[in-house]
Amino acid sequence: MARRRPASTTLRVALLGCGNVGLALYELLTEPVQRAALAERTGLTFDVVGIAVTSTAPVRSTAPWFDASLLTTDAAALVLRPDVDVVVEVMGGIDGTVELLEAALRSGASVVSANKALLAVHGRRLSQLAYDHGADLRYEAAVAGAIPILRVLRDALAGEQVHRVMGIVNGTTNFILSTMAAGGGDYAAVLAEAQRLGLAERDPAADVLGTDAAAKAAILASLAFDCKVTTKDVHCEGITEVTAADVAFACDLGFAVKLLAVCELLDGDELSVRVHPTMVPLEHPLAAVDGAFNAVFVEGASCGELMLYGRGAGGRPTASAVLGDLVEVARSMRRGGTPDVPLAPKVRPRRPLAAIASAFYLTIDVADRPGVLAEVTAIFGRHGVSIRSMEQLDLAGEARLVFVTHVALEGAMAATVKDLRRCRVVDRVGTLLRVIEGDQN
Amino acid sequence: MARRRPASTTLRVALLGCGNVGLALYELLTEPVQRAALAERTGLTFDVVGIAVTSTAPVRSTAPWFDASLLTTDAAALVLRPDVDVVVEVMGGIDGTVELLEAALRSGASVVSANKALLAVHGRRLSQLAYDHGADLRYEAAVAGAIPILRVLRDALAGEQVHRVMGIVNGTTNFILSTMAAGGGDYAAVLAEAQRLGLAERDPAADVLGTDAAAKAAILASLAFDCKVTTKDVHCEGITEVTAADVAFACDLGFAVKLLAVCELLDGDELSVRVHPTMVPLEHPLAAVDGAFNAVFVEGASCGELMLYGRGAGGRPTASAVLGDLVEVARSMRRGGTPDVPLAPKVRPRRPLAAIASAFYLTIDVADRPGVLAEVTAIFGRHGVSIRSMEQLDLAGEARLVFVTHVALEGAMAATVKDLRRCRVVDRVGTLLRVIEGDQN
Repeated sequence: MARRRPASTTLRVALLGCGNVGLALYELLTEPVQRAALAERTGLTFDVVGIAVTSTAPVRSTAPWFDASLLTTDAAALVLRPDVDVVVEVMGGIDGTVELLEAALRSGASVVSANKALLAVHGRRLSQLAYDHGADLRYEAAVAGAIPILRVLRDALAGEQVHRVMGIVNGTTNFILSTMAAGGGDYAAVLAEAQRLGLAERDPAADVLGTDAAAKAAILASLAFDCKVTTKDVHCEGITEVTAADVAFACDLGFAVKLLAVCELLDGDELSVRVHPTMVPLEHPLAAVDGAFNAVFVEGASCGELMLYGRGAGGRPTASAVLGDLVEVARSMRRGGTPDVPLAPKVRPRRPLAAIASAFYLTIDVADRPGVLAEVTAIFGRHGVSIRSMEQLDLAGEARLVFVTHVALEGAMAATVKDLRRCRVVDRVGTLLRVIEGDQN
Repeated sequence: MARRRPASTTLRVALLGCGNVGLALYELLTEPVQRAALAERTGLTFDVVGIAVTSTAPVRSTAPWFDASLLTTDAAALVLRPDVDVVVEVMGGIDGTVELLEAALRSGASVVSANKALLAVHGRRLSQLAYDHGADLRYEAAVAGAIPILRVLRDALAGEQVHRVMGIVNGTTNFILSTMAAGGGDYAAVLAEAQRLGLAERDPAADVLGTDAAAKAAILASLAFDCKVTTKDVHCEGITEVTAADVAFACDLGFAVKLLAVCELLDGDELSVRVHPTMVPLEHPLAAVDGAFNAVFVEGASCGELMLYGRGAGGRPTASAVLGDLVEVARSMRRGGTPDVPLAPKVRPRRPLAAIASAFYLTIDVADRPGVLAEVTAIFGRHGVSIRSMEQLDLAGEARLVFVTHVALEGAMAATVKDLRRCRVVDRVGTLLRVIEGDQN
């Protein structure tokens, strides 16, 4: 269907949600200097025509011009108003929310969303729906906040054969790991500190278990490799088992520990998408990404290595990404013409985790007596996992063995860990970290 | 004028130039797998219909399918062929080349160029010409190779109030400075090494004097701040005066020396664009950009800090950026509709260099006797330049004073340097480096 043209010289925006991001966006859209700049750059005046909220309790805006009469609790009616050109969804949630976006797209309104969890599940279907109704669907803010990685994958790299995307896409876990590396204490203490600073939610599960990063990984892989990837396709391990001792030891070995989302196209066709804590060599550009910052590292056949770095969260950085999408919607409405045909998603085989190759870091606490090391290393050997380095640290009455392996298959390493757990001289098997090697990049 | 639609399902490409970049691009456009991917992603088949070269001496292509019958020495006839949809200019030069691009645009063909020197002078005018004839003009490859910084400024950040862009946009000088920092020798020796490795031209003037970076700075500032900026507007200092001792001393102080292109909008309206060697704090993301890599750091009111990092030169990375532009041209031709109206460039006052504030690093060699330090520091004081730190190094028979100042005006610092040069106890005034302070960012 042909693209809808704006009724006049105005782009009429409906906001779903007025929390941190929604409020920052409202202020950006209505602040006079910004408003004039937007009109100049798009040829359209942006007007907020309604804001759906769950309760009409007063919205705490710092903008003196905040117009409370725009508030409504009837989101379903708002998205169907004929005077709405674009619906901006910053309310979160999947069930209930997805129906609102579908209704908006069916009515021919474009949609801009920041909702990674929703898009990681329904993105492909909504994109097709948008195309069928001559509307746009944009969601730059869903991955890595202000970093325009989705546009870069979709547009700038559209002529590129991308084979790997690796990202630090969760600011909370990056803050926790960076703080641990700077000697800020063990996981629980640093998490508590992050919660105190407002950098971690009271219920931090989605961040620390990696599920937030997994949703973003699904979106990245889906765009980078033209195929349907949902959260369920992502192997996901969080940072809850990473100790301050692991982080310190990694640093001594010349690595930073980062929660990485890794999206790969192996041998040109097989897909693997994983989220796990990873040891990144200190000389790799991702190693220097500290605190709440995000970064996405892309490797392509011609472009080589490319990295985008910036603020991955927060009201204004996220609103900035939404605003970039709104400008794109405005420009494409004004331009008219036929929308780009969405790619028929490729069906790509998934490479099972067990068949993924990596180097590994593993700590094992053992009884401190002769013969133990031989017994433990025999288990590695039995599964064909070759040890690159081993250090032994004395603990009270026992020893901690710190292993770094050569590249081995995940399946072999998992079997090794399983046997180590059963081994009677092993008291405890610590965190398994993947190790990126300098020469792999 | 309405956009030209492709005659059929083919995008017909004329190449001007078949050197390093042209050849890499030809191979990307014609390699079968890549060709299929491009057709899928744009709905158009890309065909190279002619290649203008200065002589028909054999082109050394590694592609077995290279079609020598495409070669012509008549570039003027090629750009006017009615079966050309887009002209890709990778031949370089300004006079002679600009007329070819004008002729192409006037005939309604789109243009993709990698020619920073040409675009830094004629970019605005060519953009208007493109619009007037319903064509596209794209030049992502002109700045920072494979890094899609121009798109990000033009599209992703179109809703953003950008106030500063700082870039490492010349790989040759960054390789030289990085190698000096790694103890690779003094400027002349490292330059010779870079030439041997093919990382510096036989005549390195455009790189080491900063003029290449200045052209890129003009293009960046022009896009970031919606105004006409040409190379003449850029204050430019190269790296030829930077010594290995300066780089080592900077490192001891916690800084890396980088040739930075700095584009600023001061107090919201006044423009300043400069290229000069700069001391960047080691914790700043730009400090870690080593070797021939490029990076551009953007600061905006809402997005905060954003950095793009990648390969700034080389045949395939540059060809990758050209290819991204070709995909965009293809998509916009296929889409039809009205092209975006080019912004009427804003007229922005230029802030004179003398009124720019910065901290400075300066070395002075003086006679090693009492009273000299008082005399020298009095000169700083007379111009209101406050000294933050001073170290004295013993040389044979004289002393080297290494100063870092607090933030002062360039005018005051220039007057200080002038008086220091006249001062009879001063034997030599060394390089003046600007210092970026952590708290400025």
